[in-house]
Amino acid sequence: MQYKNYFPENIKSALANDPPGSWMPSLPTGCIRLSAGYPAPNLVPTNQIKSAVDQMIQEEQDLPFHYLGSPRINILKHQIQHRLVQRSIQSEEQELLITSGASQAIDLIARTLLDQQAVVAVEAPTYMEALEIFRNYTKQIISIPMDEFGIQTNVLEAVLTERKRAGLTNPCLLYTIPSFHNPTGSTMTTDRRQHLLALATKFDFLLIEDDAYGELSFSESPFPLKTYDVTDRVLYVGSLSKVVAPGMRIGWILGPKMLLSAISWFKKDLDHPFAHATMSVYIQNIEFEERLDILRDSYRVRRDAMIQALKQYMPKWVTWHVPNGGFFVWLHVENIDTAALLKQALEKGVSYIPGKHFFVNPTDGLHFLRLSFSFAELEEIIAGVQKLGNLLRAIQ
Amino acid sequence: MQYKNYFPENIKSALANDPPGSWMPSLPTGCIRLSAGYPAPNLVPTNQIKSAVDQMIQEEQDLPFHYLGSPRINILKHQIQHRLVQRSIQSEEQELLITSGASQAIDLIARTLLDQQAVVAVEAPTYMEALEIFRNYTKQIISIPMDEFGIQTNVLEAVLTERKRAGLTNPCLLYTIPSFHNPTGSTMTTDRRQHLLALATKFDFLLIEDDAYGELSFSESPFPLKTYDVTDRVLYVGSLSKVVAPGMRIGWILGPKMLLSAISWFKKDLDHPFAHATMSVYIQNIEFEERLDILRDSYRVRRDAMIQALKQYMPKWVTWHVPNGGFFVWLHVENIDTAALLKQALEKGVSYIPGKHFFVNPTDGLHFLRLSFSFAELEEIIAGVQKLGNLLRAIQ
Repeated sequence: MQYKNYFPENIKSALANDPPGSWMPSLPTGCIRLSAGYPAPNLVPTNQIKSAVDQMIQEEQDLPFHYLGSPRINILKHQIQHRLVQRSIQSEEQELLITSGASQAIDLIARTLLDQQAVVAVEAPTYMEALEIFRNYTKQIISIPMDEFGIQTNVLEAVLTERKRAGLTNPCLLYTIPSFHNPTGSTMTTDRRQHLLALATKFDFLLIEDDAYGELSFSESPFPLKTYDVTDRVLYVGSLSKVVAPGMRIGWILGPKMLLSAISWFKKDLDHPFAHATMSVYIQNIEFEERLDILRDSYRVRRDAMIQALKQYMPKWVTWHVPNGGFFVWLHVENIDTAALLKQALEKGVSYIPGKHFFVNPTDGLHFLRLSFSFAELEEIIAGVQKLGNLLRAIQ
Repeated sequence: MQYKNYFPENIKSALANDPPGSWMPSLPTGCIRLSAGYPAPNLVPTNQIKSAVDQMIQEEQDLPFHYLGSPRINILKHQIQHRLVQRSIQSEEQELLITSGASQAIDLIARTLLDQQAVVAVEAPTYMEALEIFRNYTKQIISIPMDEFGIQTNVLEAVLTERKRAGLTNPCLLYTIPSFHNPTGSTMTTDRRQHLLALATKFDFLLIEDDAYGELSFSESPFPLKTYDVTDRVLYVGSLSKVVAPGMRIGWILGPKMLLSAISWFKKDLDHPFAHATMSVYIQNIEFEERLDILRDSYRVRRDAMIQALKQYMPKWVTWHVPNGGFFVWLHVENIDTAALLKQALEKGVSYIPGKHFFVNPTDGLHFLRLSFSFAELEEIIAGVQKLGNLLRAIQ
């Protein structure tokens, strides 16, 4: 049977793209996973979460197992609001929607704001999952180059001005990861943050600020875009995936009430009471700031190890910037096709994500690759970089 | 700021409907909740799930806390396939997609098959959450009356024939709850199941079979539609919400591979590894069939108590059919406006869901109401029915 006859045009159009998760290589056993943007296994609070489950069931019995019922679900919202205050963001309860991770947050925003006629703007490069989400809604994705100081807002302004002049539809939405960007690790300067917001007002678009890595800073860093958002144009997306555990699937959207109420309209997974209540007990039981200090210290050490290894083992023509937070280092490898190279790297026992997956135009990413220092052990990070360095030297 | 200017037409159209969850009354303390379609609190396996979490963390440490990693996620799929064999449904792994409950399953199917031009058919009455979901995609929802033997397939055939004759677009999708229907409790006969499938082939539409209550039968009952589905038109939706706990949010879609692969394309919450792995350990540790026997016995006793109380306390002009499974009894109360009556019922200390929420045309449900015997204690069920009976007598 030809099921595609049943698909509406927008769905047929989405299905013409690469299938979801195409960037995820199938890894040989024992491979050093510099591809994995996962938290370090030893930093996942397995036992505290186990205790949280015990305590929650002791206190609430069946309540967190129903659709509604656990008072913890509201407490979790307040706890996240409290976390946001640490990011200098004040909020009201109705401005916050808890989602199944940042991915669902981005998807829900896209669902509410995009159709096939809509234009969306992203950074080049950008988070591959976000790109996949936007491609499910529209073909019209424009990308604006970034450098080590974030998205190049002067280029953005020029592009928007020119599109307006030419009578083209300008984006209604721009997606940015201003702090400790995935994949580049770079952080947008305060000047550019302010310029970006001014452009949002001037050209009338909304912003998704993806701050999934924002709390994992290794030095002082700029305030979130949301803190400068006087005209209420920023949908701030956060997550506990990097600072607690991705498998708990807890993220959120903070934004203008009216917009949030429309977005929540389309959230049809009926939340996740068991996970929410568990997380709430966990957060209540720990000192979150102390935990963050440990995470920052630990990931800083890992970053340092990776940068040191890169200096030691990479040929001179390989370049990178040192990230001040987050999980990633972004490598430029001159004329090497990083997608073609991956097979050999996996044979040598090290994985990475080829640059092409992070770009609207895949060829723009041909000579880049993303390394993650978050998941592998310190010794593995060094050994993995060495393997990759040797491979690059050998084929040049 | 006028955010509605940012919404595409289809979203503006969806937002013109009643907001999600409008049927959920805000209940006074101590109210007997004959509105709640929740499992009985004492049947939620809180301690076994606690043990499952302990065991999982003991065995897998951080694995279930990452995006991927826990082998349990695949084991859960096999366990669900095994459950489906008990429903006489054979399946391959690629025909099964685990979702966040049946709601997300229905939403994902709607997302993949419906746009504003699409027509969808539902039973009258039907599950209010499904109606809400479909209204997010299209205004064109036609409803086909049902009786105690399920959807009236002869009426469906007449409607589809007439629409075809008149040159109207016929539905591409029909949503049905053939067993222990929500809200009516009725079960479609085998003859009608076969007729419905024949109509699907004749008029070229797909079916969602929502079997959320299918395992909770009180006597022998027909096989699922899916077992007769020789032309691969049925998307079978199931859930552990009724037989384990809704708060774990585990449901699924079983359907043709090609269709499933398209549907999974739009599932952007990245699954729920912690909940999936926990559920897998729980299922491994119990005798599921024994558990089902206990659930069936327990809900049968509750049903009997409710039916007995209805006979005792309801005025003669109130009518119902006795359900052979599931959670609900559907009451016809002649000329009483059940939406208007709710306020008084809540004052008396008993809740129900007014019939209007289950209909495409709310006025069709004016004189109906849904009672649930699943959640309240036996004594509460009797007291609640008594309160409602007294109220109905008093106002007639």
